[in-house]
Amino acid sequence: MKKNMSGCSVEESMRLLGGRWRLLLVSYLLEGPKRFNDLRRNMPGISQRMLTLDLRALEEADLIKRTVYPTSPIKVEYELTEDGKRLVPIVEIMKDFGLWLKARVKNGEG
Amino acid sequence: MKKNMSGCSVEESMRLLGGRWRLLLVSYLLEGPKRFNDLRRNMPGISQRMLTLDLRALEEADLIKRTVYPTSPIKVEYELTEDGKRLVPIVEIMKDFGLWLKARVKNGEG
Repeated sequence: MKKNMSGCSVEESMRLLGGRWRLLLVSYLLEGPKRFNDLRRNMPGISQRMLTLDLRALEEADLIKRTVYPTSPIKVEYELTEDGKRLVPIVEIMKDFGLWLKARVKNGEG
Repeated sequence: MKKNMSGCSVEESMRLLGGRWRLLLVSYLLEGPKRFNDLRRNMPGISQRMLTLDLRALEEADLIKRTVYPTSPIKVEYELTEDGKRLVPIVEIMKDFGLWLKARVKNGEG
């Protein structure tokens, strides 16, 4: 991960949660465990490689857990960890702000 | 700005606020109006070009206001708009989460 240059806590968060997809990904995992292809379907704009990298970064931060089931074909599921549930209020606040942004555009102010 | 692919409000927010620097930039503007070079000093990791682009994106979204004072040399200041103040709780929650992340690393869990 990129180095935190400012030492600031906001930067620390954004190094992990910034980018376009990570919090969106977390918002889908709030619904429960998901398989890789479920997530791809939820996020048509993300490439397979980027989704893999984003999942791995969140996994390394212990915010999501990856479980491999030894079925055939192998089933891999992702879910939020207890620490990952700390992201719930962050997802909520981003959802509210996004709704406000969209409403503003609709009202012709944006 | 990139297109919102999922229609989701979280994505709508992250298209605007995602990335490493924008919320950090907003956090410095919470202290009051700042000049371009003040912001550069606060964020040693950001390039001049990226800072310009980030400021412009937030200005186009009416979250910050750019004021040019016709002094010599010209003075340019950036400040949060009323709409931009909607970002205060977002910056706060990111700050709290960043503090938690840093404390976790210190405690050897991360």
